[in-house]
Amino acid sequence: MPDTPVNQPLDIDALRADTPGAAHRAHFNNAGAALMPLPVIAAMKQHLDREAMLGGYEAAEAEADAISAVYGSVARLINADTSEIALTENATVAWQMAFYAQSFRPGDRILTARAEYAANYVAFLQVARRTGATIEVVPDDETGALNPAALNAMIDERVKLIAVTWIPTNGGLINPAAAIGKIARRHGITYLLDACQAVGQISIDVAEIGCDMLTATGRKFLRGPRGTGFLYVRHGLLDQLEPAMIDHFGAPWVEPDRYALRPDARRFETWEKNYASRLGLGAAIDYALALGLERVEARCRLLANRIRTELGAIPHLTLHDLGRDRAAIVSFSIDGYAAEAVRAALAAKGISVSVSKPSSTLLDASFRDLPVIIRASPHYYNSDDELDRFFDAIRELER
Amino acid sequence: MPDTPVNQPLDIDALRADTPGAAHRAHFNNAGAALMPLPVIAAMKQHLDREAMLGGYEAAEAEADAISAVYGSVARLINADTSEIALTENATVAWQMAFYAQSFRPGDRILTARAEYAANYVAFLQVARRTGATIEVVPDDETGALNPAALNAMIDERVKLIAVTWIPTNGGLINPAAAIGKIARRHGITYLLDACQAVGQISIDVAEIGCDMLTATGRKFLRGPRGTGFLYVRHGLLDQLEPAMIDHFGAPWVEPDRYALRPDARRFETWEKNYASRLGLGAAIDYALALGLERVEARCRLLANRIRTELGAIPHLTLHDLGRDRAAIVSFSIDGYAAEAVRAALAAKGISVSVSKPSSTLLDASFRDLPVIIRASPHYYNSDDELDRFFDAIRELER
Repeated sequence: MPDTPVNQPLDIDALRADTPGAAHRAHFNNAGAALMPLPVIAAMKQHLDREAMLGGYEAAEAEADAISAVYGSVARLINADTSEIALTENATVAWQMAFYAQSFRPGDRILTARAEYAANYVAFLQVARRTGATIEVVPDDETGALNPAALNAMIDERVKLIAVTWIPTNGGLINPAAAIGKIARRHGITYLLDACQAVGQISIDVAEIGCDMLTATGRKFLRGPRGTGFLYVRHGLLDQLEPAMIDHFGAPWVEPDRYALRPDARRFETWEKNYASRLGLGAAIDYALALGLERVEARCRLLANRIRTELGAIPHLTLHDLGRDRAAIVSFSIDGYAAEAVRAALAAKGISVSVSKPSSTLLDASFRDLPVIIRASPHYYNSDDELDRFFDAIRELER
Repeated sequence: MPDTPVNQPLDIDALRADTPGAAHRAHFNNAGAALMPLPVIAAMKQHLDREAMLGGYEAAEAEADAISAVYGSVARLINADTSEIALTENATVAWQMAFYAQSFRPGDRILTARAEYAANYVAFLQVARRTGATIEVVPDDETGALNPAALNAMIDERVKLIAVTWIPTNGGLINPAAAIGKIARRHGITYLLDACQAVGQISIDVAEIGCDMLTATGRKFLRGPRGTGFLYVRHGLLDQLEPAMIDHFGAPWVEPDRYALRPDARRFETWEKNYASRLGLGAAIDYALALGLERVEARCRLLANRIRTELGAIPHLTLHDLGRDRAAIVSFSIDGYAAEAVRAALAAKGISVSVSKPSSTLLDASFRDLPVIIRASPHYYNSDDELDRFFDAIRELER
């Protein structure tokens, strides 16, 4: 990978040369799945070759150290201990393993934010129906972010879980993860943070945030493979959690009528894994760490803010972003154009954006009466030229 | 792939030429993970390249038809309908999604077989503890297989589930899947069949078996990628099952306080998948179907029986296989040699076998007082030369 001293700006040309897809597409769908850099692709292909030559188990044995090191990479990325990390098929499985391991009684309260992601919210609904727990949305501040003061005012002894998406799937918003953590800590309430869109875009320090559990994906801003994710569970809480589902990896069969849960967070895993993808995830994290998340974050903000400024000046285009301090997800709609048609028109010009339907964040979309929106999510490897092409293409639509 | 007319024997040389690993190792660990053939490796690498060039979502969109076709391949493999198939991270997740969707009350009975796999048994134990259900082992017949008459005699209105591994992880045994299905059907009892070691080794017809749910892995005799699996759920039962965990893929968020489960078996899936692995699984299934499972089965039996005959003649070597009609998993131990030492000695000679600990099948291992055993599991692509090398290596140990 391009070796840039941390005190210098990122070498965008070198990073683009390290990204095969950058030569072909202006990729502004990093909140969907980013373009993988060469070391990620190589790590996966090499392991597939190893499996083809040696066999799947024999290859995993040969690469045991590298496979084990992926846990260390995740731990470094979020400032956790290796034993607090589980690797999962995706972020949803990580989140499910955390959420469904919680116990609720009738009247227990689950607090969340308005822009909570559909994957999580339907699970709240299922568990609420099963257990009699209630789901309550913490009011927003004037910028649309979860209001910590409002959260604090809602706390009572029935609040059993605070579960929030840090950077929701659409709209620039960054919820105040650390402020929520302070309140959760003070009251001893379990705090589950969905960091899907945060990981790889901004620095994450679970100790500073004060979350008990954190879940994330590999494919978005981390630039890792599809079908990868991880779960962090804080020591101290870990011992109290039994996974809702187990197998003999997480819970070895020790006596005919007894299993024993693993002491570490891998109790939330199953035996069989896709090792090629795991090695790709490890390569993606090591790549991000070598670049430095502060630099990555600064560049992402720069590009996203440029997009907001330029798009904001286009007539009949409405930006839908929330929050004061905004992430690299820019959402908008254009009067008279269906979002899907805009996406297709851009795709025909080699520009990738995505669309996001109201059902992804139904409470927020209903509250704000959002249409299907177009989502442009730049990453550090996007160039100014690509941004210009994107703006030109949007302006052309307007004509 | 080698094009052999179905009325002719398999062209082993051509199949070996299609298997890069066959030139390097005598691979008798097909019950662990088989060597992948070229089309499987190519399908995965091509999709990884596509993802690198286009982006993860854009690549999935470009290959939507091929990705969708994987469900059809699974359905053809087991004679099911496409809508009855879910693709999962592995067979354990498939099995968990099926098992944990069942409801049990105190006193409900779960019937299983003695050689049930640890992954499944610890889940029985967890659910038994949670719900007050009981786990009961159906007695074996004189060959060690589940005895259908004994099963029939155990049936009463409290039996809520029959969950059996068709071909257990060690020991040649093939449980009478279809005979069990007849009894389950007659009494209207839900029947969950773990077909991990059966799929890709023998023909599977869910209608003929009469199972309600069937789970399998891609990496074993199917020769697919690690980290792949599938679940079959019979129409009619499907409507009655709500997954124990959901996300917005299996259960779209349709109103602020309501989700709606998908009508098909994909209600058991989550949104994010590893598409490269899925395409590899599809390629593996298509490969097996093109060869014809009858021919595959015949060849596997032939090799396994040759192994049993030759090993059986070696002094101080004990075969541990069960059953009358035996599958391509041969288990043995050698007096005075630890299984792991035998495995290592064979590995040093380019021969791959695996070892299986008592904790994998704790009830059976305790009942039969099994040591750690060596497991040799041939596949159709193994040559007679490889078998001879294996026998020589074992005999050399003996000297």
